[in-house]
Amino acid sequence: MALRGGLPTENGFVGIEGARLVEEALCSGCRIQAVLFSESGKRHHQRLSPIIDRPEMAFPTLYTTDRLFEGLTDTEHPQGVAALVHPRETSFDDLVRAPVSACAPLLVVLAGVQDPGNVGTILRTAAAFGATGAATAASGISGTASPFRQKRFAPPREPRFIFLFLPGPLLRSCSLNSRWREFAPSLRARTSRATESSRLSLRGKSIWCEPVALLVGNEGTGLPEEVERSADARIRIPMASGVESLNAAAAAAVLFYEAARQRNSLPASRIQPSAVPPNQS
Amino acid sequence: MALRGGLPTENGFVGIEGARLVEEALCSGCRIQAVLFSESGKRHHQRLSPIIDRPEMAFPTLYTTDRLFEGLTDTEHPQGVAALVHPRETSFDDLVRAPVSACAPLLVVLAGVQDPGNVGTILRTAAAFGATGAATAASGISGTASPFRQKRFAPPREPRFIFLFLPGPLLRSCSLNSRWREFAPSLRARTSRATESSRLSLRGKSIWCEPVALLVGNEGTGLPEEVERSADARIRIPMASGVESLNAAAAAAVLFYEAARQRNSLPASRIQPSAVPPNQS
Repeated sequence: MALRGGLPTENGFVGIEGARLVEEALCSGCRIQAVLFSESGKRHHQRLSPIIDRPEMAFPTLYTTDRLFEGLTDTEHPQGVAALVHPRETSFDDLVRAPVSACAPLLVVLAGVQDPGNVGTILRTAAAFGATGAATAASGISGTASPFRQKRFAPPREPRFIFLFLPGPLLRSCSLNSRWREFAPSLRARTSRATESSRLSLRGKSIWCEPVALLVGNEGTGLPEEVERSADARIRIPMASGVESLNAAAAAAVLFYEAARQRNSLPASRIQPSAVPPNQS
Repeated sequence: MALRGGLPTENGFVGIEGARLVEEALCSGCRIQAVLFSESGKRHHQRLSPIIDRPEMAFPTLYTTDRLFEGLTDTEHPQGVAALVHPRETSFDDLVRAPVSACAPLLVVLAGVQDPGNVGTILRTAAAFGATGAATAASGISGTASPFRQKRFAPPREPRFIFLFLPGPLLRSCSLNSRWREFAPSLRARTSRATESSRLSLRGKSIWCEPVALLVGNEGTGLPEEVERSADARIRIPMASGVESLNAAAAAAVLFYEAARQRNSLPASRIQPSAVPPNQS
């Protein structure tokens, strides 16, 4: 078991932990190599057994002591249930193909985002606002944190692994060093029809309604120069004077929200109060 | 020196660290108790001395070894310069009074936000989108992390202490346990004129243009019941199906952005591409 650091094993399996995540992994259709329970984690067995016991689930269920289990994980108070899952990987073609339901591909490429919390938040927010795919890419200077890495102090109800939630395909890792030169033109070819035809409206509203890949760079140093140069445009979020920058995940949240708002692709297109608590009605 | 954990000393001073933060603290008008350099931190002395040497700066400048300095801080690779600063505290009246330039008070109350990264991001985003004040409040179940606590692995260019950036006053800490009962009605009294008169438009656009206090709760358990009940409305952010929730800081970013967008209070009211890199023009 390799639960620490979110790094995949040699054959591409990633350790995930927690009853809810394991349940989601089991239901996701991803390949499972094994499920592991600690002594105290056995209490989750009942919840998971209807899925584990299905005939198509041909993987071993393993048991270990609490102490050994704790030695395997990054978490302070592990729930005692873990699994080795093969993340849904995908081809470039799948990544840039928009799902039938979406108006146009909306991709996010993380190029050097270092903080695992930011990586998780950006992927989760992307999913929430209708992104159709994501790539995490190591830049020349600093790699993007693994989306499978756990936050040590994440509250138990926070979903920590986003690949299971992302409705579109998730291209887990591509190295910008070796592959950006082939990745960028293909990305451009898929999105350029739109940007060509709407070049004049790039300064207006329609950019968000076209196929878009949003590039998010390192928290400190931004995008590698080569990657930034390959972009069609640089987006500026208007801010109050005196504030230099936003946190990378907060900036991405604002942009995905704006994209969803303009695409009108969400159940309700406007944030609105949905309920007045009983004593105020 | 008490640099660890962001907790204030008995007389209310908070340790901050890093050349840029110390410079901002020196320029902020906040009271300074002392500035401390380590051996290797002396390289920052030249940058700071024009401010430190001003006659009105009547605090001692201290020197210590690198080893002792490292023992004082939470940071992995400290820059070797720190200060004890008395954060700008403020009265409730100041907090709810809108600055002359703002259209209406836009406050954020953090009630039980546990992750120091989230607290920092929320305050920074609030400042960026024109919030006029902030309060961090311990809830009954879990306290809000100190806004002065440092993130251990924060990239060096990330501003880690937001109180210096927040244009409005920052009410640093009030305990919901003992003070929510007096805080909530006062807050309501200051914002209720608007919510009374626009009760019927609560479901429309105008809520964001009125005086608003946005309550943000714990990452796992949300707002304490008492606090939630005292609110006029619960805001729902529309999301794609299959995604249960957003990270607290991402949700706050979206709401502050929406408020700023509707208030039209930012330099430019719409996110737009600001520059096409040279090779794409």
